[in-house]
Amino acid sequence: MKRGKDYIQSIKDMKFELYIDGGKISDIYGHPQIRPAIDAVAATYDFAFRPDLKDQFLLQSNLTGETISRFQHMPQSTEDLMRKVSITRFANRQLGCCSFRCAQNIFAPLLYITEKIDRDRGTHYHENALNWIKLMQKEDLLGCPAITDPKGDRRLQASKQPDPEMYLKVVEKSKDGIVLKGAKLCQTGAILAHEKIVLPCTTHRPGDEDYVVVCAVPGNAPGLINISVRQPQDDRRREGAEIDLGNILYGVHECIVVFDNVFVPWERVFMCGEVEYLDEFNNMFGACHRPTTGGCKSGWADVLIGATELMAENNGLRSISHVKDKLSDMYSLSETICSCGIAAAARGFSIGAAGYLPDPILANNSKYYTSKAVYDLIRLAEDITGGILSCCPGEKELRNPEIGPYLERYVKGVDSQSAEHRLRLVRLIENISWGLNSILHSATHGGGSGQACKLLLYEFSQFAPYRQEALASARRLCGITK
Amino acid sequence: MKRGKDYIQSIKDMKFELYIDGGKISDIYGHPQIRPAIDAVAATYDFAFRPDLKDQFLLQSNLTGETISRFQHMPQSTEDLMRKVSITRFANRQLGCCSFRCAQNIFAPLLYITEKIDRDRGTHYHENALNWIKLMQKEDLLGCPAITDPKGDRRLQASKQPDPEMYLKVVEKSKDGIVLKGAKLCQTGAILAHEKIVLPCTTHRPGDEDYVVVCAVPGNAPGLINISVRQPQDDRRREGAEIDLGNILYGVHECIVVFDNVFVPWERVFMCGEVEYLDEFNNMFGACHRPTTGGCKSGWADVLIGATELMAENNGLRSISHVKDKLSDMYSLSETICSCGIAAAARGFSIGAAGYLPDPILANNSKYYTSKAVYDLIRLAEDITGGILSCCPGEKELRNPEIGPYLERYVKGVDSQSAEHRLRLVRLIENISWGLNSILHSATHGGGSGQACKLLLYEFSQFAPYRQEALASARRLCGITK
Amino acid sequence: MKRGKDYIQSIKDMKFELYIDGGKISDIYGHPQIRPAIDAVAATYDFAFRPDLKDQFLLQSNLTGETISRFQHMPQSTEDLMRKVSITRFANRQLGCCSFRCAQNIFAPLLYITEKIDRDRGTHYHENALNWIKLMQKEDLLGCPAITDPKGDRRLQASKQPDPEMYLKVVEKSKDGIVLKGAKLCQTGAILAHEKIVLPCTTHRPGDEDYVVVCAVPGNAPGLINISVRQPQDDRRREGAEIDLGNILYGVHECIVVFDNVFVPWERVFMCGEVEYLDEFNNMFGACHRPTTGGCKSGWADVLIGATELMAENNGLRSISHVKDKLSDMYSLSETICSCGIAAAARGFSIGAAGYLPDPILANNSKYYTSKAVYDLIRLAEDITGGILSCCPGEKELRNPEIGPYLERYVKGVDSQSAEHRLRLVRLIENISWGLNSILHSATHGGGSGQACKLLLYEFSQFAPYRQEALASARRLCGITK
Amino acid sequence: MKRGKDYIQSIKDMKFELYIDGGKISDIYGHPQIRPAIDAVAATYDFAFRPDLKDQFLLQSNLTGETISRFQHMPQSTEDLMRKVSITRFANRQLGCCSFRCAQNIFAPLLYITEKIDRDRGTHYHENALNWIKLMQKEDLLGCPAITDPKGDRRLQASKQPDPEMYLKVVEKSKDGIVLKGAKLCQTGAILAHEKIVLPCTTHRPGDEDYVVVCAVPGNAPGLINISVRQPQDDRRREGAEIDLGNILYGVHECIVVFDNVFVPWERVFMCGEVEYLDEFNNMFGACHRPTTGGCKSGWADVLIGATELMAENNGLRSISHVKDKLSDMYSLSETICSCGIAAAARGFSIGAAGYLPDPILANNSKYYTSKAVYDLIRLAEDITGGILSCCPGEKELRNPEIGPYLERYVKGVDSQSAEHRLRLVRLIENISWGLNSILHSATHGGGSGQACKLLLYEFSQFAPYRQEALASARRLCGITK
Repeated sequence: MKRGKDYIQSIKDMKFELYIDGGKISDIYGHPQIRPAIDAVAATYDFAFRPDLKDQFLLQSNLTGETISRFQHMPQSTEDLMRKVSITRFANRQLGCCSFRCAQNIFAPLLYITEKIDRDRGTHYHENALNWIKLMQKEDLLGCPAITDPKGDRRLQASKQPDPEMYLKVVEKSKDGIVLKGAKLCQTGAILAHEKIVLPCTTHRPGDEDYVVVCAVPGNAPGLINISVRQPQDDRRREGAEIDLGNILYGVHECIVVFDNVFVPWERVFMCGEVEYLDEFNNMFGACHRPTTGGCKSGWADVLIGATELMAENNGLRSISHVKDKLSDMYSLSETICSCGIAAAARGFSIGAAGYLPDPILANNSKYYTSKAVYDLIRLAEDITGGILSCCPGEKELRNPEIGPYLERYVKGVDSQSAEHRLRLVRLIENISWGLNSILHSATHGGGSGQACKLLLYEFSQFAPYRQEALASARRLCGITK
Repeated sequence: MKRGKDYIQSIKDMKFELYIDGGKISDIYGHPQIRPAIDAVAATYDFAFRPDLKDQFLLQSNLTGETISRFQHMPQSTEDLMRKVSITRFANRQLGCCSFRCAQNIFAPLLYITEKIDRDRGTHYHENALNWIKLMQKEDLLGCPAITDPKGDRRLQASKQPDPEMYLKVVEKSKDGIVLKGAKLCQTGAILAHEKIVLPCTTHRPGDEDYVVVCAVPGNAPGLINISVRQPQDDRRREGAEIDLGNILYGVHECIVVFDNVFVPWERVFMCGEVEYLDEFNNMFGACHRPTTGGCKSGWADVLIGATELMAENNGLRSISHVKDKLSDMYSLSETICSCGIAAAARGFSIGAAGYLPDPILANNSKYYTSKAVYDLIRLAEDITGGILSCCPGEKELRNPEIGPYLERYVKGVDSQSAEHRLRLVRLIENISWGLNSILHSATHGGGSGQACKLLLYEFSQFAPYRQEALASARRLCGITK
Repeated sequence: MKRGKDYIQSIKDMKFELYIDGGKISDIYGHPQIRPAIDAVAATYDFAFRPDLKDQFLLQSNLTGETISRFQHMPQSTEDLMRKVSITRFANRQLGCCSFRCAQNIFAPLLYITEKIDRDRGTHYHENALNWIKLMQKEDLLGCPAITDPKGDRRLQASKQPDPEMYLKVVEKSKDGIVLKGAKLCQTGAILAHEKIVLPCTTHRPGDEDYVVVCAVPGNAPGLINISVRQPQDDRRREGAEIDLGNILYGVHECIVVFDNVFVPWERVFMCGEVEYLDEFNNMFGACHRPTTGGCKSGWADVLIGATELMAENNGLRSISHVKDKLSDMYSLSETICSCGIAAAARGFSIGAAGYLPDPILANNSKYYTSKAVYDLIRLAEDITGGILSCCPGEKELRNPEIGPYLERYVKGVDSQSAEHRLRLVRLIENISWGLNSILHSATHGGGSGQACKLLLYEFSQFAPYRQEALASARRLCGITK
Repeated sequence: MKRGKDYIQSIKDMKFELYIDGGKISDIYGHPQIRPAIDAVAATYDFAFRPDLKDQFLLQSNLTGETISRFQHMPQSTEDLMRKVSITRFANRQLGCCSFRCAQNIFAPLLYITEKIDRDRGTHYHENALNWIKLMQKEDLLGCPAITDPKGDRRLQASKQPDPEMYLKVVEKSKDGIVLKGAKLCQTGAILAHEKIVLPCTTHRPGDEDYVVVCAVPGNAPGLINISVRQPQDDRRREGAEIDLGNILYGVHECIVVFDNVFVPWERVFMCGEVEYLDEFNNMFGACHRPTTGGCKSGWADVLIGATELMAENNGLRSISHVKDKLSDMYSLSETICSCGIAAAARGFSIGAAGYLPDPILANNSKYYTSKAVYDLIRLAEDITGGILSCCPGEKELRNPEIGPYLERYVKGVDSQSAEHRLRLVRLIENISWGLNSILHSATHGGGSGQACKLLLYEFSQFAPYRQEALASARRLCGITK
């Protein structure tokens, strides 16, 4: 198992091809916009080595028998599913941002579906998947799901797009492997991960077989080009700010990843063209992944709530009735977010050798609820924090000997805390609300949009026995007999 | 264990003193406003005898070793806590109204607190409690928590009220027992229960010792007077309506219960004057009770949703985009309500011999969330159902040969379903929305008001280690070092 | 102009054919379920005779030059449009229920569209309309818009329904007039109005010409059959309750109206078959009518808020922080509802001789906003009122000498106010929330459903110049040049 | 009257003392972070010279008889009040950000209160105020209200703060004038305005007389130091970005303004120490100012909505049901925001020579409603826009010949629009949502926080006759006679 420092070294060794701020860079860890993201992941690697967290983070792999990190574990019980929610909440509460450790949510769906395809089709995907998962566990590797295709005109299926590569495409197949062309967008943590896990972003239809590809690609495979996106306040990192960063330790990083004829050997391919299995596979992955949202966003929210409480204290308003009332609503939002994830896990069920799957209805509901709740959270945070949140002087002004003394005097709250103290809180709240580590974006479209989850919530509900039971009960109770 | 018919007979035998509709009645089961409530409880007694439900409803008592109904069980694991939520959802989905079976939520707090008081004070409450709980299990008795005092002027504590009996009071103590005077309001199921479980409705303060009383009183004890309240549409029962009832099988019933010098022997007293234990006891009971809300209200909502779906079908609009969208939101509300309860249960913890307690923060959050969500549910139900919901002809008109044929023609929806069919659905939706079995009231003030739960959510959160951790994390992340 | 007593006499003289509670009745004013509705309308007739209200309620008709009630006036300015909102708010605040006086909203659209049709087609509708409106003003008559057709299967247009009369149909045309067959549902105030104003409930399409009919029919025309609907708590009126009524003075009444071959002479016909004008006409009527919602619902809400304030006082909680906070939110909801209506009126515009029309976008927005806001209002009312709202003893119990004294003691709030006082408040809050005069139904589907208004809000917005301007501005600001 | 270019020159001539980005600058208009704000104001100056806008923007001053811009006008009718809302909506729709032209909202309260104080106290404030307002109109000057004090510990009144200058203080009075010391925060447009209008931010209490000061100070008065704050994405201006700016033309700018012993001659002082008049004055100003919010935020929102519509089109989803539904909700939010402002204006009333005042209850409601609605707006915008909103490549990457071609291909939406087109829309939506011109902050705390407005809404409602009427009506309707 890797410690944080081992992880950092391993990422340095990857030598990703990365473009950022108009140029190509070679020293990824040295770049101020990327280092905080690598450090965030490194911190999560270190959890397993903290004596007080050992019970939470270490366990024996059901695949290899070796001791692994829970972040690499394939849940074998509802207890395991709930723990995944809990450790994610813990991690995000430590980092105040994305913890980048949810890629293992793909393990169970992968084992399940490859076994099924092999059985039906005589393919050999299952062994590939099993070997790759064992590798991930053994080497303690980080994966990055590469899901979101460009999609072009959303009304058209992949094979009907004017540009044939608006969805990542298998442009060549040989006896050794396949060649991929296209791009994946919204790649959170692309250059933090050893492995890119290629997954289709939608349910393709017959005719789209060339776009149905699931495989694992080393992050530094030839032809993979990472292009950094530009996000609110990432500029501040470049200039070497500290206070103004809000979160001085950690931060997200996201890329667009171009696949320019990337070769993938067959032993790393887990699905290729089997369009009729994709629906089930995607839905399983959604069910596995979305309860994590409950932990992720509630842990993230916890830091926002904590900072807001400290700010209320700084304003001298911590015990004022309407402030306590609003904090109560923030607590309630965070706990409801987490409850939805926990419940989906607690109601999970066995899918055989591949382990346990959360309840798909509750999983999708978890994400849908969360996608709305985060806006209420930031509204309340801004309300309590006050006008300073959007009118806050920068640290250069605070450090300027000519005007700094004015600011030290006039930007203070309660007398016992310095202006700098106050600015730091303001910047952290800004950071989580709409700054670099904004909780909004991850909650709105990350892991599937609220709308997509709502549709699945609807679809799965149509098949739920208790919905049928409710219809029967309604008829019976009002006396409709036929 | 009792079957439904045994339960009915046992209630008949109780010969409660009951006033209703201006008079006193002797044949309770024969009264059309009460029978549906007794039948509702009877239906829940029958669950345990249904072969398909045996696994859900039967288990061995940890106290007596005998087979008991899960409704009588004191949870011994988080699994037990979750099952309680699940069977409550099931029961309410069957009944479309309150299932009256949550009194066992008092068992664990009672055993816990009596053990503690006895240990500190040398009293003998614990044995009393244990014996009474064993009796409840053995005889399969229904209890009714008698909690809500009149309260008079809410700003004043009990002993400072102008009327000394605005909170139920111990007006006499002898070597044999105690005498109670006062009243309890909002007694859901008072005349459905073999036992009234007397509990203080608030955290009394020093000086209020005479109001601190926990005990069990047979429902037919001398001096107990039940006064039926008047609720929307209960009139319809008296007139022998069928269609217009909405729910033709089941319905709630509530009373004001007067305690006119009711004697309680010491062996049925579990607390008497120990004001300093009341806070903990009440909070434990709240924690035990409120996750049940998640099951109760989601099961109740399931019937509303089912009826709304059938109504959409009847209108020919089942597959229209905005209707599916609104149904999705109804599903989401119901699942979130349930998820909050499930999560509180899943995060429960052992309190020793007394079994398991749900997480108090999540428990209070469950009730708080639910108290708001139900209004969204009925808003969506009314939206989908259409204007007929508030403009629906009565069954007497439908049955009238002069005008009935007009109604059969003009109150139809899709051609394949009769007008009567439509009216029955409308009445069921009315019944659950704001009629006799309205989900609103139970969710707003039943089991503790939303406001009370919000306050407890706040208070408990102040002590939660992870909230402290969040404060520390916020400081660390923004660089506040002192 | 009529005084209240004249109005009552005129209604008595109408001798409507009415079925209620299973039978046909002849003495409408004598019926306890109807009298409160007639009294409500009578009260609005008396406003014009109150010296303090003269300025608000009297003015000179622009059509006849005579003094008329503002309730009969066709707005000639935005000031007039706003006053209509204001007097409606006033009226509903006096009544605590529907004031039944919005039928004049049809006058302007009627004059406008008939002039247009006559011009295009050489018909003579305009003179018919003008004469009828003058009659309404001169005789101070009340009209009842007869809009909602049964609609059957909502997916099918009128002429494609399995039953050809699921929409009111012109089944015969002669040189003297037309004959109507079918029904209109949701007829609020049908038997309170001298005139039924027949209007199509939807935009019919070519092929549906037989269903396109606008005309005025005396409420007692042969073939018109009124069938009373059954609403929450209307039973209480029959039994002669007082306290339990909540509103002891006034109450709504609604009917289904069957048109069994009703003959209408041509001089009372304003449109007949001109399907291509219907869209514009309906949209104009919606624009005229929906801002009234702002006055209607805010006045209605004012009574709910007032009663809730009194209840908070009765509970001793009037000055508690969270109660004041919730009352503030109730104020805000009521004022926002009214503001939407006022703004639609203030932004009104001239449509020539037919007077002034409110802004159609703001008008539809007014109704859409209101349809959601009322649920928040009743949620807050129930929250503040407390559990007694759904667990309140009836007046028969209070009057019963055996148990009344208990109730007088135990159902009190603050000592200075009697139990009866408290029960009266509870019943009024119940009445407006989900009782006989529930604000919910009127706000959800009355005057066009929220969904219909939302669709029109969308459609009209597509044509609004400022929306086009916003698109251009967005392009310009971000530098999209082509 | 000034044209835009005159305005720009006049601001250049002011030679403000300004610190930004760690240093002091002399060429304000040359600075990339400030120029867009000056250009925004200049654009508003040019409106009055556009022939098509003349009717909206030009009128005769009631004070000087000269032709002035409506932005300088003191409303003399409700029509004037409404026009102020309308021109503000127009201006913000043109700019996509704050239009900085609401300072004239102080004119009427100033004339009113100075007249009252002079009458009571024999002071000479009124003439001072009148002269200054005439100067503002004649010279077409821009004012910036300097309101928000640092406030320190919010629980303490000004004179009890540990630091005596946590509220701006009159530290010296002489026969020539007064000297001010302290600071004003959240100064939107401080260096865009010719005049700083000093106003107390709260209702001071007896003992705080030294903090009660209302006066006008030229923006370049000695001792005035402007310190630029740091806001999301203002960095991008410095680097010379274009696409990444979102709004390539305009942007807000805000300062902290230090008053380091600023001398103000008596003829520019309008209140000094008259603590008992402050409450009324502040409330009047709030009532004048807050309806402007309705125009301001709805115009701002219109651009967001427009950009979101264009983005929906770009995604190929413009006609999809759930997208239209969400756009409808965005329209509704924008129209309700505006309606609240319009209604407050339409319900305005005369305050004598000082002109017209909006209804204070509706004015405060307008701001309170808006402070919540904007979060729903950005939630819906983000929902429709998609994941690209938070994962968008920067223009440097797009311009980089190595990777630009990939981006041009893979960041496109529908085929007919270029990737650049798409990025521009994304950046504009980002800009208004949480970027430099975020609508959130202005709506949450600008012009008084939502909480402050809610409190005033409550307080004023207690005195509103119609609230008293509602209480009486509630009593009467339920039969409470005493």
